[in-house]
Amino acid sequence: MERKNKAKNKMKSSQGLKITDLGEFGFIARFSPAFLKGLPKKLKGIGDDCAIIPWQGRKRLLVTTDLLLDGVHFLKERIPPFDLGYKSLAVNLSDIAAMGGKPLYAFLSIAIPSETEVAWLDDFFRGWKKLSSLTGVALLGGDTTRSLEKLVINVAVLGEAEKNYIKYRSSASPGDIVAVTGDLGDSGGGLRLILAGLDKREGKKLPPAEKYLLSRHYRPRPHLEEGFFLARQPGVRAMMDVSDGIDSDLKRIMESSRCGVEVHLENLPVSSALKRCSHKYGWNLEEVATAGGEDYCLLLTVSPAHFAEVAIQFRRKFQRPLRAIGRITELKGQLTYLLEGRPVILKKAGYDHFKS
Amino acid sequence: MERKNKAKNKMKSSQGLKITDLGEFGFIARFSPAFLKGLPKKLKGIGDDCAIIPWQGRKRLLVTTDLLLDGVHFLKERIPPFDLGYKSLAVNLSDIAAMGGKPLYAFLSIAIPSETEVAWLDDFFRGWKKLSSLTGVALLGGDTTRSLEKLVINVAVLGEAEKNYIKYRSSASPGDIVAVTGDLGDSGGGLRLILAGLDKREGKKLPPAEKYLLSRHYRPRPHLEEGFFLARQPGVRAMMDVSDGIDSDLKRIMESSRCGVEVHLENLPVSSALKRCSHKYGWNLEEVATAGGEDYCLLLTVSPAHFAEVAIQFRRKFQRPLRAIGRITELKGQLTYLLEGRPVILKKAGYDHFKS
Repeated sequence: MERKNKAKNKMKSSQGLKITDLGEFGFIARFSPAFLKGLPKKLKGIGDDCAIIPWQGRKRLLVTTDLLLDGVHFLKERIPPFDLGYKSLAVNLSDIAAMGGKPLYAFLSIAIPSETEVAWLDDFFRGWKKLSSLTGVALLGGDTTRSLEKLVINVAVLGEAEKNYIKYRSSASPGDIVAVTGDLGDSGGGLRLILAGLDKREGKKLPPAEKYLLSRHYRPRPHLEEGFFLARQPGVRAMMDVSDGIDSDLKRIMESSRCGVEVHLENLPVSSALKRCSHKYGWNLEEVATAGGEDYCLLLTVSPAHFAEVAIQFRRKFQRPLRAIGRITELKGQLTYLLEGRPVILKKAGYDHFKS
Repeated sequence: MERKNKAKNKMKSSQGLKITDLGEFGFIARFSPAFLKGLPKKLKGIGDDCAIIPWQGRKRLLVTTDLLLDGVHFLKERIPPFDLGYKSLAVNLSDIAAMGGKPLYAFLSIAIPSETEVAWLDDFFRGWKKLSSLTGVALLGGDTTRSLEKLVINVAVLGEAEKNYIKYRSSASPGDIVAVTGDLGDSGGGLRLILAGLDKREGKKLPPAEKYLLSRHYRPRPHLEEGFFLARQPGVRAMMDVSDGIDSDLKRIMESSRCGVEVHLENLPVSSALKRCSHKYGWNLEEVATAGGEDYCLLLTVSPAHFAEVAIQFRRKFQRPLRAIGRITELKGQLTYLLEGRPVILKKAGYDHFKS
């Protein structure tokens, strides 16, 4: 009852309020309670990377969907169409990876400006097909329409997971080691290059570091095998994919798990390419690594008793380390960055889908 | 092999070709073969109202998705937000109805321009909730993001159906009676009013006929009960929903079922409101009824031996007639309109998502 009244009061005070005033967290806080109320108990709804639906026996159906707009999530004139096709699928597969699932089917809705060349679309579908073949994901349907202005893409992916192995954002526990499955900030660095017009050089080849960051931005690899493997390791608790940068994404884990996080900045895994470019262009390396976004590796918490074993198994399987970057604390809602043991404040918060 | 070579040749000849040159049918013809090739045999892919996926025992999962853009599918400044929320869900539920299924879960992706008022969104969600409560459909997730320009909505709906009762577009047979479950053209008439600026009168109430057509355009009722019922009647063969107008939609049945259709124009069910407005504004009644689109009633074919019984059962259950409008012929790809037995040519073809 109390919750209901609160919602009513909120509704009353909305006169003149704009969507930008809410922000993405505010949006979800405002609109999700009314929908979550009537949900059957077996279902998991808004809040994790995928929705979870009863399937066959212990199997669960995972569903995720992402909306991508020219000018907001990509720049059509800059991204090669092959890469856009690849990436549109990749970002959804990453959500399936985040819960420890296997992707099965995809649905593509696309609104196409009339001046688009068919050759452009051929390349888009080649890029999509490249990743869908690699991951065994079948395109089962969708919607195609014209767009008056910009290209719009919505992808929905269905996957499956075994009930007992599904990982949530809400399972982190104080003392857990926080870890990531890949380098941070490369994609964010690639985006900086694009926004600064450094992604193309007339008649010249790009240096390898720049090329590497761009490729990581344009063709992120969903960590499907890593997610599937980690979900089955004892001691792995919360898991999600790094889509908005760990600064934003850790806040989601903190909110779902009602905890805090301590991050040791010197432990953030960053590529030599990102280091080189940060130095060259005067970027704040830690800022790019924590708030760059679109890394699409996995962020997880592991019970301290199990971490060493999980890390050994991970290295054995993937020939690279599982990187510990911090730990879960009891200080609810507090995200602390430490540099050589001392708290520091980073300039920029993570990406907010409404404000930035 | 032959098919593969054909596809290659097509790809080669695309230089300079624009997406408008293809049209929607051309788009599907071009891009679907490459994706359909690798599909598991148990799956039904692109081509029907929903994709069909094995679920539990004889149950099948139905999946449909629709992309709706401000300026193409609706006018944000004109449609009341409540109605837009309602309609965004309705058009997807209609696809589930078309296959004889029950809708279960929905996913909403929405890109919101920053100047949007929170009160507008409150109303949007109230409209959505109205229909989702009526139909028992749970909102399980989605994606929210800002839009630089226009509002973008993508809805995906999951439903279930029993394998033996699922209806396809490809099951029509020569001799079948073609029927519809509701009036045609009301929504198209409503759209004409909107485009002509006749949807609002300063300080005055709209006449009942205009009001009725607008309500049919803004709040289409998905024929879920009708679809579920008809799918279980012996003799019902092909079924789909009328989304683009029967002129377009019959062509889809003809293509899938490799047949032709004869439509008796005098048998098209039209409301007295549409008749009144057609007379008042000089619309061609048959044109609005066949090509107006967005009727969201069901279009089906019934074996001639069973039609009388199906029509009796339909009237008993829904207290209104199932309307026979023509029959399936053997003349592949030929859609003939007859007026008092004589062939006539209608002015406008159905809506094409790329061209009109």
